[in-house]
Amino acid sequence: MSMESVYQYVDDHVEDAVQLLERLVQQPSVSAQNWGIQEMAELCVEILNEEGIDAQLLELGDAPPLVVGKAAGVSPRRLMMYNHYDVQPTDPIELWESDPFTPTRRDGNLYGRGASDNKGDLAVRICALRALRAANGELPVGVTFMLEGEEESGSPHLPALMAEYGHHFAADAGLLEAGGTNREGQPVLTLGVKGLLYLELHCRTTNSDSHSATAAVIPSPAWRLNWALSSLKAPDETVLIEGFYDGVRDWWEDEIEALRAMPADDQKQLKEKGLKAYLDNVSGLEYRKRLYGRPTCNICGIETGYTGPGLKTVLPAEAKAKLDFRLVPDQRPEDILDKLRRHLDAGGFTDIEIHPIAAHEAPVRVSLQDPFVKFCAQTAEEFYGKKALLTPNTAGTMGTSAMTDVLPYSMIFAPGGAGYWGSSVHAPNEHIRIADLADAIKYHTFLLTRFAGTTF
Amino acid sequence: MSMESVYQYVDDHVEDAVQLLERLVQQPSVSAQNWGIQEMAELCVEILNEEGIDAQLLELGDAPPLVVGKAAGVSPRRLMMYNHYDVQPTDPIELWESDPFTPTRRDGNLYGRGASDNKGDLAVRICALRALRAANGELPVGVTFMLEGEEESGSPHLPALMAEYGHHFAADAGLLEAGGTNREGQPVLTLGVKGLLYLELHCRTTNSDSHSATAAVIPSPAWRLNWALSSLKAPDETVLIEGFYDGVRDWWEDEIEALRAMPADDQKQLKEKGLKAYLDNVSGLEYRKRLYGRPTCNICGIETGYTGPGLKTVLPAEAKAKLDFRLVPDQRPEDILDKLRRHLDAGGFTDIEIHPIAAHEAPVRVSLQDPFVKFCAQTAEEFYGKKALLTPNTAGTMGTSAMTDVLPYSMIFAPGGAGYWGSSVHAPNEHIRIADLADAIKYHTFLLTRFAGTTF
Repeated sequence: MSMESVYQYVDDHVEDAVQLLERLVQQPSVSAQNWGIQEMAELCVEILNEEGIDAQLLELGDAPPLVVGKAAGVSPRRLMMYNHYDVQPTDPIELWESDPFTPTRRDGNLYGRGASDNKGDLAVRICALRALRAANGELPVGVTFMLEGEEESGSPHLPALMAEYGHHFAADAGLLEAGGTNREGQPVLTLGVKGLLYLELHCRTTNSDSHSATAAVIPSPAWRLNWALSSLKAPDETVLIEGFYDGVRDWWEDEIEALRAMPADDQKQLKEKGLKAYLDNVSGLEYRKRLYGRPTCNICGIETGYTGPGLKTVLPAEAKAKLDFRLVPDQRPEDILDKLRRHLDAGGFTDIEIHPIAAHEAPVRVSLQDPFVKFCAQTAEEFYGKKALLTPNTAGTMGTSAMTDVLPYSMIFAPGGAGYWGSSVHAPNEHIRIADLADAIKYHTFLLTRFAGTTF
Repeated sequence: MSMESVYQYVDDHVEDAVQLLERLVQQPSVSAQNWGIQEMAELCVEILNEEGIDAQLLELGDAPPLVVGKAAGVSPRRLMMYNHYDVQPTDPIELWESDPFTPTRRDGNLYGRGASDNKGDLAVRICALRALRAANGELPVGVTFMLEGEEESGSPHLPALMAEYGHHFAADAGLLEAGGTNREGQPVLTLGVKGLLYLELHCRTTNSDSHSATAAVIPSPAWRLNWALSSLKAPDETVLIEGFYDGVRDWWEDEIEALRAMPADDQKQLKEKGLKAYLDNVSGLEYRKRLYGRPTCNICGIETGYTGPGLKTVLPAEAKAKLDFRLVPDQRPEDILDKLRRHLDAGGFTDIEIHPIAAHEAPVRVSLQDPFVKFCAQTAEEFYGKKALLTPNTAGTMGTSAMTDVLPYSMIFAPGGAGYWGSSVHAPNEHIRIADLADAIKYHTFLLTRFAGTTF
């Protein structure tokens, strides 16, 4: 089937795509703050139904609704496309140059929270279906949308939602959040995600704040927490929790080859971050092995005492830290949680409470030899005219294990996302380049068209 | 001179004292937030002038005004009385049962920020002058009020204000913020204050927050700060800064005797704080030697990353901690600051910036053998009918060294304050017991009356 008329439609309707994305961005949907989630889910159903994609909310207790949207195709082949309609919080809000929920066009970009992650991808995929139908009157394959409402909060309800509603998502393969092309224009496929264990450490020593003059005799939760944290990771970045690295498997040979084939874009990112060097001054292959393959223990935030302007001489009653552990095959989050508790107890930190937040996410990695991986690589190379980069793992996390535990097909990140490497995802001034939209939509039309001919 | 008519006046006018204090409390004056400071200074001048105490603002650049108020007495003897009109910030505001700046009577108490520290003492002293004049038509001695506007912010401008305006405060002796009686009803005199070095540690690694997925390669300011802090103090509370304890002199023999004579009220305070034990399980004399004589390194607050509800997977760009060091004779704050910088550099923490906040305050301690100390002890014993407790040092700090550097007379904390041991100073729900006011005022009338007969 010729793509020419489809691509022409896409080129003629970029403005429609921008307006669809603006409509998605201007509805706040911060899952961490339960802000606009229900409204956003309903807006997604409304938009999908407007597009002739049969959509509904799948609800379960107080979980943010899962949205399912189905469209039939000529071929019995069916592709699942996962996106999430929630976004990260916006703080530090003062660093945004325009309101995060007022989509703003500036210098050829569209700014707004979620413009890239992940409302941009959703807009692209809807527009791909629209273009195929406009040009051909039908879709080449069946498509099932899965839109989750709390990916940015660690997908705490996704395992339960999958257990209840997994049967809605039968398909032959799945596309996760869309990736894109790298700075050299090569299409990027990512085959794995790290796991995530997110938790808070709490320490309370007294029932109210004390005058800091009593610091000679009253135990400080801020110091206790500080010492406990220092016991978790050494200044050389080694995680000190006993057995933390037990489950980590080495990179396979084909994975190392894939890592080696990736371009060295780490030096450009250094400059963007205002950094002199990465940890241990890594670069090139070592940088990638570390970024994509090393488990982490990160402090997302610490809250204790007085942090306003000037001086307050206080000994806080309580101290809290938010930590995230990014895990790699074959670590298991529940195992790391157990080991953390044992580590704190063994170090005398029985006064430090652990409060897990969100569901545990296990690491997932699809083999480089998987037929869907090979299909996606081939279509991407054909479309973009450059060799595909197969990234064995992303540095980030998704609730993929909740899906792969229930759904029997392979899911990977393929290109065609709205964003690019400079989109400031999870940061102030998130944006996409409007000029990128047409190619992203076209790639999805091409992939769906070719998917009709697959047999795996 | 008989005190009877004076005391009768005090008893008959407690309500006036409460109303004066309410008037002082309802004007916010948070120096850390520069909130209401000028208004408060002007209110103090207004009130003092209403009382026939010749008052004015002493201004210097952007310093909160110092208020001086002078009243003549029959005797040429003159007593300086120091108070501060600023208060601590109110957070955590959600723990207040009534608005901190809406003075609220409840269960025989008056609640409000500053009700005890230090507007309560000021109200008491003004009412003492009022009672003496009402009963006798005159004051027995001259009185000079010094009202400072940023004691709770570490008195950063007090040295400069003293250099400029010290001549306004000529006197024979000085009373600092008023103390009171302990739980056993014994009058307490305090002869020394710890020094204070207040500073912020800052660490920044990148020019913007990063997705926490990059934690394997991007240095974290939260971890850097955490490790730097852990290098400052060991979990056994030993400060690890090289030379930190060099200047600390041992307690003198008469000071240890004074400490030994103090009642053991540490166990009751344990219960109030919801604590099982003090650090190292100290009690009795050891508790007091430690509380009053050990220098501290306290974390007043830490600010980094996301501290809102739920989950945000972020690697912060910056981390900050507020620290206060309480120093004892003969440590010097500027020396400790130098040693801190050298310590951080030697530990590889050249990326941790030190930002001192407020003026450095040196420790000050008056000898137990000082004649003004003996006078205050004697009058207190006579008034309260119990043996005076001579506390060689308080656990806290005041800008005393800025005053003693310029003013040649002894200054101590004598009884007669509005608050009591449970006043929740620097904490939510600060309050005084209204029933305590009359005695506090009477004690000041008695002390001023007796001061006329002193010759030191």
